[in-house]
Amino acid sequence: MKIHGDIQSGNCYKIKLLCSLLGIEHQWIHVDIMAGDTAKADFLKKTPSGKIPLLELADGRCLSESNAILNYLAAGTELLPTDKFELAKVQQWQFFEQYSHEPYIAVARFIAKYLGLPDERKAEYTAKQVGGHKALAVMEKQLSTTAYLTGDSLTTADISLYGYTHVAHEGGFDLHLYPSILAWIANIQKNKNYTGM
Amino acid sequence: MKIHGDIQSGNCYKIKLLCSLLGIEHQWIHVDIMAGDTAKADFLKKTPSGKIPLLELADGRCLSESNAILNYLAAGTELLPTDKFELAKVQQWQFFEQYSHEPYIAVARFIAKYLGLPDERKAEYTAKQVGGHKALAVMEKQLSTTAYLTGDSLTTADISLYGYTHVAHEGGFDLHLYPSILAWIANIQKNKNYTGM
Repeated sequence: MKIHGDIQSGNCYKIKLLCSLLGIEHQWIHVDIMAGDTAKADFLKKTPSGKIPLLELADGRCLSESNAILNYLAAGTELLPTDKFELAKVQQWQFFEQYSHEPYIAVARFIAKYLGLPDERKAEYTAKQVGGHKALAVMEKQLSTTAYLTGDSLTTADISLYGYTHVAHEGGFDLHLYPSILAWIANIQKNKNYTGM
Repeated sequence: MKIHGDIQSGNCYKIKLLCSLLGIEHQWIHVDIMAGDTAKADFLKKTPSGKIPLLELADGRCLSESNAILNYLAAGTELLPTDKFELAKVQQWQFFEQYSHEPYIAVARFIAKYLGLPDERKAEYTAKQVGGHKALAVMEKQLSTTAYLTGDSLTTADISLYGYTHVAHEGGFDLHLYPSILAWIANIQKNKNYTGM
């Protein structure tokens, strides 16, 4: 099993973390977007959207979209519920992540950390703060009542949200405003098979 | 079972279409975002994100995020595969929809159809065209090789993408550039239990 990705991307790191937690052996293939790796014909043959992370199975079948990959790899393990409603709740949080969290927190982090917060993107950066804090507030509300996003145990929903939340400070978000999120981050990092970015 | 939504929203319409295809009885509760319905305390008790569509089960449990609701309602039917990889492919397309399709096509449609394309949003509208066409090109590539997004049969992935794609012209997208998408739309509309927006 090959995973094509860049560990500095939260979307790619999610897969690395899951593999570490579950002890899934894999070959990590570093992809450099800036160098044009994802625009190469060979890569585009594997995925219609040309995005990372990309999971490539031994038989050649490929799967993209970080959260779809997480759920595929976690199927049949304790990280993915089998109850129909619980499973839907995991997906609820994952769609929330891709629509209401990542476009604010990951983009603010990209502008600040990788582009050095240039003047021409300061207005966008400021706008991203609003959406990002809204997303963090939704998480805080849930995590003030349950230890993990869907209840008492860690699922792929937590791994999905953990990806960019634990580095949100790099996008200018002060996580000390969210004590339940900080406790949740600490809890995840206590896992003996945890691996950092 | 209650579904809280606004049928003019593609995300809400998806659920209506699925219920029609599967003959799922439900009570549709119209929610008017512009009138502040989703900001009311009663509504926010049901969902942390305060968004529609929202599924409310008879026992009071609630589920948000359109694609999570689709997969919950379709579980155990022919619209959701049970094979682990096929199921992951459905989710791959659904995450693509929420991240790479909806934010362009649905927003362009909103600006044009509901706001009347005001001058101050014309630059944003133009920018949305680029991302929207990119998403449509990815769909066209897949649909030129398979009848439906994940293969030979209709799944919730198709319903997810159909929601905003079939009204993309209202956002300024000329679907005649995408013959395979047009054929796919026609195919879906042939279903005897099909219902329009």
